Amino acid sequence: MKDIYNVGLIGFGTIGAGVVETFNRNLNLMEQKVGAKIKLKRIVDLDIETDRGVAVDKNVLSTDINDILEDPEIDIVIELIGGYEPAKTFILKAMGHGKHVVTANKALLAKHWEEILKTANDNNVRICFEASVGGGIPLLEPLNERLAANHIKSIYGIINGTANYILTKMTEEGLDFDEVLKEAQDKGYAEQDPTFDIEGHDTAQKLIILTILGFGTYVEQDKFHVEGISKIKQEDIEFIKNELGYSIKLLAISRIEDGKLEVRVHPTLISSDHLIASVNGVFNGVYLIGDIVGPVMMYGPGAGMMPTASAVVGDCLDIMENMERPNIYGPKDTEVREIKNIEDICSKYYMRLTVLDKPGVLHAISGILSRYDISLESVNQRRKNEGREVPIFLITHEALEKNIRSAVKEIDELDLVKEATLFIRVLED
Amino acid sequence: MKDIYNVGLIGFGTIGAGVVETFNRNLNLMEQKVGAKIKLKRIVDLDIETDRGVAVDKNVLSTDINDILEDPEIDIVIELIGGYEPAKTFILKAMGHGKHVVTANKALLAKHWEEILKTANDNNVRICFEASVGGGIPLLEPLNERLAANHIKSIYGIINGTANYILTKMTEEGLDFDEVLKEAQDKGYAEQDPTFDIEGHDTAQKLIILTILGFGTYVEQDKFHVEGISKIKQEDIEFIKNELGYSIKLLAISRIEDGKLEVRVHPTLISSDHLIASVNGVFNGVYLIGDIVGPVMMYGPGAGMMPTASAVVGDCLDIMENMERPNIYGPKDTEVREIKNIEDICSKYYMRLTVLDKPGVLHAISGILSRYDISLESVNQRRKNEGREVPIFLITHEALEKNIRSAVKEIDELDLVKEATLFIRVLED
Repeated sequence: MKDIYNVGLIGFGTIGAGVVETFNRNLNLMEQKVGAKIKLKRIVDLDIETDRGVAVDKNVLSTDINDILEDPEIDIVIELIGGYEPAKTFILKAMGHGKHVVTANKALLAKHWEEILKTANDNNVRICFEASVGGGIPLLEPLNERLAANHIKSIYGIINGTANYILTKMTEEGLDFDEVLKEAQDKGYAEQDPTFDIEGHDTAQKLIILTILGFGTYVEQDKFHVEGISKIKQEDIEFIKNELGYSIKLLAISRIEDGKLEVRVHPTLISSDHLIASVNGVFNGVYLIGDIVGPVMMYGPGAGMMPTASAVVGDCLDIMENMERPNIYGPKDTEVREIKNIEDICSKYYMRLTVLDKPGVLHAISGILSRYDISLESVNQRRKNEGREVPIFLITHEALEKNIRSAVKEIDELDLVKEATLFIRVLED
Repeated sequence: MKDIYNVGLIGFGTIGAGVVETFNRNLNLMEQKVGAKIKLKRIVDLDIETDRGVAVDKNVLSTDINDILEDPEIDIVIELIGGYEPAKTFILKAMGHGKHVVTANKALLAKHWEEILKTANDNNVRICFEASVGGGIPLLEPLNERLAANHIKSIYGIINGTANYILTKMTEEGLDFDEVLKEAQDKGYAEQDPTFDIEGHDTAQKLIILTILGFGTYVEQDKFHVEGISKIKQEDIEFIKNELGYSIKLLAISRIEDGKLEVRVHPTLISSDHLIASVNGVFNGVYLIGDIVGPVMMYGPGAGMMPTASAVVGDCLDIMENMERPNIYGPKDTEVREIKNIEDICSKYYMRLTVLDKPGVLHAISGILSRYDISLESVNQRRKNEGREVPIFLITHEALEKNIRSAVKEIDELDLVKEATLFIRVLED
């Protein structure tokens, strides 16, 4: 136990300002928790002039990274610059100097997990990253520690607030994807280039981290299926909600099926009665199933200045309370023998076909489906519009994804089919 | 770090059998997590003959408590006999022998918190009790550690599965309280004497523990308002759901209002859009608001053999990973200066009055309410039945509880009022 813990912060952006504000507001609470003095000794950023709207002692600010890396008094380095470089170099150097590291950098962890973990272990320092998934939600530590008596069977989470906001608005207000995206951009909930969020890449990076913790397995991002929400139309949302009693959510899924690990990110139909269907707006929620505990869910703000700062500072306090704790993330001897190819998963599917409203069209489609061993739970053509384009909605029974893909490919080659068929996987508990 | 950790289990009931089963199934996983051997060295119970349905080495069983208390090799004692005595004596003695303690005993903690904590600290041992509130849900540690950078502003939770099951069934199936209670008893979800669960006493004990962790304040059970669900009728549920878009939940509430702490257990109206309204059946959910993080919720199985065992064993692993951690529960320097009397709270209220359907009845009632400064948001008499008893449903604007109580007392003295008026507090975020 030390008398004082010194913290260095690299990156004085939005989250960095949140960390400073947390220190400003709650330092007393934090010091009492740890039983020692805590000092935010140095903040390094390229820009130390711009006012971040939080009170900060000018003498703490520096543009020289070595003021943190080479200061022997600094125990913990918070990295909040994000991205791969120079974040990675700074983190590895900090570890080389014997400093513990707290980061919210999901991209870096998802890409360089093994190197970062090894460097931490080689230097006997801790690496904590609660803020990297689910923002302020207490999530990674509960999964990794509180549930350590469990083999995790399944994780599925809503871990991107932008995508969830868009799907929620489409559902609640009957608006189209483009309209909602524009509104989200105006409100600052979506970036000007929203690809990273709406196409599932952000979710995929976070899922890599969840998969390490839940299954002790590191999976590279190009090794699993990632699909976004941009093809979802208002008519999908409406049909799924009103006719099926389901919701569409962009889910990160990682689960064991027959000894193989399924890792996938895609829009998913889930029963509206399922608690995760009630995770709305920019909020995040992660639903876990352990073999001993059964299902648990953690919910909260998945992003934002102050929520993310809460997790970052929580990690700092945890390190101060136990600097010796080894970095054991995920079960060591994983049950996972293989990552399942997306083509080998089994699921029910929702499909929206856009066809010419003519006699025989359904017969042609059902013929193809049956040849691929796909049976139907329901078929629904809600509009009649003889000779014009209409949507047909199908729900299949459990089918193999590779059969679905082949069938959809054949279906889309039919003259009567006027638009690429959309298919969405259904998740049942 | 030791090579082997020995655990002693006191109490081989349902949860105890769950702990044994967890050791049987997942010992390998647990040992890898901790990096040492783990042994369930001794199980003590008065009855060591009855088959608990789990595999257990006969040599591990004993009826002599001293086989645990006086065995110097045992590092951690799990207490699962419940109740006050002999549980308390055993726990204090175990601590006196330098053993760390894990317990799920909410009754004991709620009553003797200060003595137990002091004894643990005097003996430099840890006391862990994750399973005492919310069963298997990772809840207390996240609140106490992960959110340690936050001043907690508000906690409200559904932490009794029996009461929640009954309210859920009444809501979903339109049944009356007595019918559902009987069904719950038949299914084993409710005790033959259900008082402890349905009148809120179990919830109150758990709330005491949550209040320690959230606000650093110990409140005795007879110092706060505790009210159960037995007066709720199907007509309340129905009106609240269909006309108001609200749900009734038995909530444990602990929150700071104007520097004073409100601690209360009672049925509560909460908007059906609120995530906690989606916590159904025997499940538990606790919603927390921190000043930095904002709102978070943890959800899962609040009771049961295996879920509770998951939390108990999780505590054991946590102790093995850090035997030196001091017992710091809740903020040290609490913001709380005073516990607010229930009469001083401010709330909206739902009221169900049973009156004779006669001209003038509403005039009489509204006169009383207005004299007590209570204004109405809505009044609803859905049935006409001239000269007979009918229910009237009222929603008030924000009012002081003491005024509500005085008004209800006067109203219930009117000749036209035929049954004690029910009032239920409304919780708004």
